[in-house]
Amino acid sequence: MPEQGLMIVASRAVMGEGAPFSAARADTGLPLDRIYRAASAAQVDAAVAAADRAAIAFGDSAPADRASLLEAIAEAIAGTGDALIVQAMAETGLPRPRLEGERMRTANQLRLFAAVLRDGTFADIRIDRADPTRAAGPKPDLRLGMLALGPVAVFGASNFPLAFSVAGGDTASALAAGCPVVVKGHPAHPGTSEIVAAAVAQAVLASGFDPGIFSMLHDAGIAVGQQLVTDPRINAVGFTGSRRGGEALMALAAARPVPIPVYAEMSAINPVLLFPGRLAEAADEIGASFVASLTLGTGQFCTNPGLVIAIDGEPLDRFVAAAARALEAWGPGVMLHPGICSAYGEATATLARHEAVVAAGRGGSADLRATGQLFTTTSDAFLSHAELRHEMFGPASLVVRCRDLADVGRVLAQVEGQLTVALHFSEADHAAVAALLPVARRKAGRVLANGFGTGVEVSPAMVHGGPYPATSDGRTTSVGTLAIARFLRPVCLQDIPEELLPAALQEANPWSLPRRVWGGAG
Amino acid sequence: MPEQGLMIVASRAVMGEGAPFSAARADTGLPLDRIYRAASAAQVDAAVAAADRAAIAFGDSAPADRASLLEAIAEAIAGTGDALIVQAMAETGLPRPRLEGERMRTANQLRLFAAVLRDGTFADIRIDRADPTRAAGPKPDLRLGMLALGPVAVFGASNFPLAFSVAGGDTASALAAGCPVVVKGHPAHPGTSEIVAAAVAQAVLASGFDPGIFSMLHDAGIAVGQQLVTDPRINAVGFTGSRRGGEALMALAAARPVPIPVYAEMSAINPVLLFPGRLAEAADEIGASFVASLTLGTGQFCTNPGLVIAIDGEPLDRFVAAAARALEAWGPGVMLHPGICSAYGEATATLARHEAVVAAGRGGSADLRATGQLFTTTSDAFLSHAELRHEMFGPASLVVRCRDLADVGRVLAQVEGQLTVALHFSEADHAAVAALLPVARRKAGRVLANGFGTGVEVSPAMVHGGPYPATSDGRTTSVGTLAIARFLRPVCLQDIPEELLPAALQEANPWSLPRRVWGGAG
Repeated sequence: MPEQGLMIVASRAVMGEGAPFSAARADTGLPLDRIYRAASAAQVDAAVAAADRAAIAFGDSAPADRASLLEAIAEAIAGTGDALIVQAMAETGLPRPRLEGERMRTANQLRLFAAVLRDGTFADIRIDRADPTRAAGPKPDLRLGMLALGPVAVFGASNFPLAFSVAGGDTASALAAGCPVVVKGHPAHPGTSEIVAAAVAQAVLASGFDPGIFSMLHDAGIAVGQQLVTDPRINAVGFTGSRRGGEALMALAAARPVPIPVYAEMSAINPVLLFPGRLAEAADEIGASFVASLTLGTGQFCTNPGLVIAIDGEPLDRFVAAAARALEAWGPGVMLHPGICSAYGEATATLARHEAVVAAGRGGSADLRATGQLFTTTSDAFLSHAELRHEMFGPASLVVRCRDLADVGRVLAQVEGQLTVALHFSEADHAAVAALLPVARRKAGRVLANGFGTGVEVSPAMVHGGPYPATSDGRTTSVGTLAIARFLRPVCLQDIPEELLPAALQEANPWSLPRRVWGGAG
Repeated sequence: MPEQGLMIVASRAVMGEGAPFSAARADTGLPLDRIYRAASAAQVDAAVAAADRAAIAFGDSAPADRASLLEAIAEAIAGTGDALIVQAMAETGLPRPRLEGERMRTANQLRLFAAVLRDGTFADIRIDRADPTRAAGPKPDLRLGMLALGPVAVFGASNFPLAFSVAGGDTASALAAGCPVVVKGHPAHPGTSEIVAAAVAQAVLASGFDPGIFSMLHDAGIAVGQQLVTDPRINAVGFTGSRRGGEALMALAAARPVPIPVYAEMSAINPVLLFPGRLAEAADEIGASFVASLTLGTGQFCTNPGLVIAIDGEPLDRFVAAAARALEAWGPGVMLHPGICSAYGEATATLARHEAVVAAGRGGSADLRATGQLFTTTSDAFLSHAELRHEMFGPASLVVRCRDLADVGRVLAQVEGQLTVALHFSEADHAAVAALLPVARRKAGRVLANGFGTGVEVSPAMVHGGPYPATSDGRTTSVGTLAIARFLRPVCLQDIPEELLPAALQEANPWSLPRRVWGGAG
């Protein structure tokens, strides 16, 4: 009898009671031998009920205590040893160094949120003191602080099985905010999820916090996710994945009797603009570095450069030729799972057949492997065919040949909201960049110079977000310290006596939180 | 031929080209003699196009320049003289002192946002400096700032014809954020809107900003509002009004190809909890002050105390009797317009007929005037009849008689999201308050002690917001300085040379904005 994998309800390992499934090896498509079972409706309910019971105390806990919890989770994940890496390699096809780096990033991300909690600025404490003698009438004492939203549902992403999955950025920022988290594990890497969730649960159990603050549920279908998003005790949703998946969650959340925020990071083609001065001097070099970015993680980064916009001519031809050569030398690469690989094959084949598109280069081919592919089209075709603007998830990109800079601007204006826009330019291009930068800033969450968006620093100044459909809510980021703001809302307490105030708002400031103070008599 | 009223497109006065309408005197229901015309579809388009053209330069303008604009608008509004007050009195039925006070509040609100802009903290500038020598690979230069969303549609509210209308909190905070504003004026006070909009336009024209940053359009129907909310160039919506109206806008915004945020402040019954210690010592006094709050503005405040929750017994009987006496001595009061008055009459009549409800007191009656009304019911009835939890917009309230404190908690837990929860207690009640305060904090945007929510301070620490359906987005406030955050989103610029950076993010910091800095080499 095959081994049975576990999930976590209220920080305890349990076996699912729903339909069985198993993951496939990414490189062969053959099933892995551990059997998982989906959470039953009763198990989902138990996880949410436990999260709900834990919510008030967790939301009101000292930030420093939550910081210690996040640090303990980071330690536990860092200590998962080779078992985690081997499991994730089998389930995702990602190579060892990438997964080891991603584990370090995941642990460091948790530590960064611990630092945010110890800093305390996130709570935005504002005290406007009473003035009983004000001429226009007595002024009350007002105290504002950011309060946790309550239990949050987080959907694990397939493309970062550690950094955007069970204990990734959504979970880290929600726990930092004081929100209990119920994770729906991604079915492509249940074993990876199991190991990480066990590490989180171990840290929670040792922390003294209510075990209800963390659960991780399996499901190869959509029932568990639907139940989570529609449960009245769930207050927000974090998701990284396809546009179709994100929009389905948005629709479910909007149709609830009480709608809730959905933070879905969904779809981007991350335009790369090559300005003429820079292109003329470094077309070959940029072509090679472009392909390095395009093929990173087999093209499965959210910030993958799926669109290149430049003025047509000899330098652009050189760029295309250099990129085509580099692509031919690359791969083919294993994708995260067979479904992604076949969707990629269909998307690229459809584009290759498009009357307005020329195939400019492709790598070798193999079963269950993606070949790098490069296409070109004209600005006129791009502007008139909406289907050319769709994301192809994988190592494929489309070069748009423009007549002039105005044409580059028109093409940029036509693309949908993006995570990143990358600008390649030299000093000679500054005037042209100055003209297009305001457009780029309104189109994306991050605009970068002479590089590619695939490196996403975990920083207080990072924005991994952007206008729809890059994300469902362009006012936020899912990477970097500002991500905590997604799970908080302001509450004002007026004239509440000191002894009844939550610690964060007390005049005595027992947690020594930074705060701004206004008012007071005369 | 009757006089024709004007509206504003791109800071210029024009006559509408759509269907004619006129407002009614609130106290008689008779039409006022000035004729207004709705904006035509082409006029709406012109207003939005002008806002869109102005958006980038306005969003990137110096906060201090926008501060000067807001101060000039405040001056212009403060200088509207008696004409504005007389017009608003006729259209809204609100008394002169209230309107004079509201005008001062409106001007002060604009000045407060000017102070927010001069302070600069709202921009949340974060600089994480490059480290080219980092062991894990070169670290880029990252600069984060809050960017204006772009053109915003604001719907004037009927119940605060100045402070929540053409130049109210939504317009002030959107302009402060750097977002051009297109206002849809409320058809119940088109003349008031005309005077205020002319003052705003005068200040804009004198400011040197693009005149496209402000328009105010009339419409007695819904076509102009629908066109605004569905226009792809509109990026957010501000609204204060009925739940039906707000939910219609939410649905329109969610169904757009690119959904946008809707900040709708919709519906609240603002529970008042009377704890036994305080009730026993001051039932009569609280009853009288409760009715003063309930009848303020003829009960047409968003924070009107429409629900009282207390343990049944002799002290509560005394409260009800004192409130009933005060109600009988009050009014009847003119309502904002005949439609609101008849809706109020129907809502109170329906409640009066409800089998589980007892009418405990009502004021005198008169045509087109609202009578103050007080009802009582039991906690069991309240918990089992959802219709008892609906807002009655006007000077009516329902007292829920509970068995004990646990019962009070159950009733509070059952109500929907609220703008405010008011707690009346003495020291003897502290333990009971401590038990219920966390519930109240999760139910409302503001929790206050020994007062009523009807005084909403314009303060850095104010939250006028709350969980759905009090507002469509409980992560925000529509009063107080934090309201500016509704119209901003973070953008990160990576490795952009100093001379191409927007001024707010330049190393040289020409606007002297406050900022936080991290990183740098070794």
